[in-house]
Amino acid sequence: MSVNIAIVGATGAVGKEFLSILESRKFPLNELRLLASGRSAGKKILFCGKDYIVQELTKNSFKGIKIALFSAGADISKEYAPYAIESGAVCVDNSSAFRMDDDVPLVVPEVNPYDIPKHHGIIANPNCSTIQMVVALKPIHDAVKIKRVVVSTYQAVSGAGLKAIDELKKEAMSILEGKEGFQRKLFPHQIAFNVLPQIPQSKAFLPNGYTSEEMKMVNETQKIMGDHSIRVTATTVRVPVIRGHSESVNIETVKKITAAEVKRLLSTAPGVKVIDDPANQLYPLASETAGRDEVFVGRIREDISIDNGIDMWIVSDNIRKGAALNAIQIAEKLL
Amino acid sequence: MSVNIAIVGATGAVGKEFLSILESRKFPLNELRLLASGRSAGKKILFCGKDYIVQELTKNSFKGIKIALFSAGADISKEYAPYAIESGAVCVDNSSAFRMDDDVPLVVPEVNPYDIPKHHGIIANPNCSTIQMVVALKPIHDAVKIKRVVVSTYQAVSGAGLKAIDELKKEAMSILEGKEGFQRKLFPHQIAFNVLPQIPQSKAFLPNGYTSEEMKMVNETQKIMGDHSIRVTATTVRVPVIRGHSESVNIETVKKITAAEVKRLLSTAPGVKVIDDPANQLYPLASETAGRDEVFVGRIREDISIDNGIDMWIVSDNIRKGAALNAIQIAEKLL
Repeated sequence: MSVNIAIVGATGAVGKEFLSILESRKFPLNELRLLASGRSAGKKILFCGKDYIVQELTKNSFKGIKIALFSAGADISKEYAPYAIESGAVCVDNSSAFRMDDDVPLVVPEVNPYDIPKHHGIIANPNCSTIQMVVALKPIHDAVKIKRVVVSTYQAVSGAGLKAIDELKKEAMSILEGKEGFQRKLFPHQIAFNVLPQIPQSKAFLPNGYTSEEMKMVNETQKIMGDHSIRVTATTVRVPVIRGHSESVNIETVKKITAAEVKRLLSTAPGVKVIDDPANQLYPLASETAGRDEVFVGRIREDISIDNGIDMWIVSDNIRKGAALNAIQIAEKLL
Repeated sequence: MSVNIAIVGATGAVGKEFLSILESRKFPLNELRLLASGRSAGKKILFCGKDYIVQELTKNSFKGIKIALFSAGADISKEYAPYAIESGAVCVDNSSAFRMDDDVPLVVPEVNPYDIPKHHGIIANPNCSTIQMVVALKPIHDAVKIKRVVVSTYQAVSGAGLKAIDELKKEAMSILEGKEGFQRKLFPHQIAFNVLPQIPQSKAFLPNGYTSEEMKMVNETQKIMGDHSIRVTATTVRVPVIRGHSESVNIETVKKITAAEVKRLLSTAPGVKVIDDPANQLYPLASETAGRDEVFVGRIREDISIDNGIDMWIVSDNIRKGAALNAIQIAEKLL
């Protein structure tokens, strides 16, 4: 069965990745409708050897559409998802607009595919840094129950969009050439050759001192895993990496699990690839995950500071599994 | 009282910083003897407006020297410290050679100055990532006792020496120019626009899966704080930053302490500067700590995952407070 698909935000970093994945996975497409702001309307995008014209997103954009993939920010999702639903489409929304709504499933297909059928027109795609973490945590939680997670992230600038990649490259070049006075438009501080403990870069901190990105990792982890007893604290940090989020994840479990058992569990877990060969200096690297589908896990070891603890290093392509791929996996399950 | 000082490893990253700090702090110098390998012997180094000739390090290099500052790696320290002691010098050693020896004090002057007089010719300077962490933790430990620390680091390449800085810059330029086939000499993987969960880059992992850098943070923290009940787990990560180590530090305390109390405590703590103004997007940044003496702390907040927990972000100049400055502070206390 072929379906009509709309992509909202077709010209963005995630929009482009949607197209690349739809093509490579031979998604059963009938019509493909590319939607974006009026500014991008009229642009041509090549897909499967054919030019597609980007159309301006309006409330009438969704006629005949079966699945609408949204990735144009929370404001656009809030405004246009109701029109898509009214037209009979199911929205798979990559923004944070509806993620914590009680009647909206928040889904990582490897973790909670059973939540997909509960939707009322919207299925939310989780935050990138949460997706890759829960894919690796789920098999461990099922085996020995996770009590607490302490995570620190090393997040690529592509999480802030194509303009952020451009700003990092230009600032890096400016510093290497010894020039001064580089004009930043996006990041509040130098990002090249620096690390920023604030994500997103534009938003205010919350009253409890956490950023919204950090609270996403707390709340979304509980909702996706379907277990509000899992305690999470997170520190999310932007690093001068183009693509691929890395995470230093410490977990405390109810029952003891050895590092060897974690490796064995994760080696057969869906969507996970273990790269953990210290003798040969092999561990997951952001530089080697771009364009890859899997969540990579390494540096798996028993935490020496507590009885039932595991430390590990989780890396994935934030634009692919962290956004576009996860949404398309949801769409595939919907069909 | 003026003293005769020798610097072993005078041409390295830390050696150069020793000179800059001795000059700026108006250290009471009589003779300054610059020592290095035969390869660097004969080089001229400008200090206080005068040229000094670098001499080749030999077992006879320490005659008349009162304090020898060693920063040329563990092998050199092990071989030459005995000669320095024989000549009547006290060695302040920046390498890991003697740090965990029972009869060698491991000192951060803000934390355990009382250990200095216990020396038998050698005082060890701790690992850079440990120094900055314990300066911030000590006031909290004194107030409410720290049970456990979970730390993830974001460490600058300068911790691996001047050649590492050069390699990062060249690799970054190569990537920005779209060239392929960059030849790395030092790092086992791409470091520009990437993060590596392995420090040091050249050494094997330990049987427990930790790196030696990670175990330094565990063992040295306990020794410096004089409390082996403090449990520590660490994940140490190299990031493409030239100078300045950042750390995401999570602590669990025996007694409850609020974020406001931590801020108040640290605001008057020796060697600490609190930069914690989220409303104005102000927090410690590696890019702003180069050449500064303080340990900077921000993002101080109560950990929502446990009853008695604090998350914070600790940044310091790894070459300065993390190495050269701390050693010179020890030398000053010795006098």
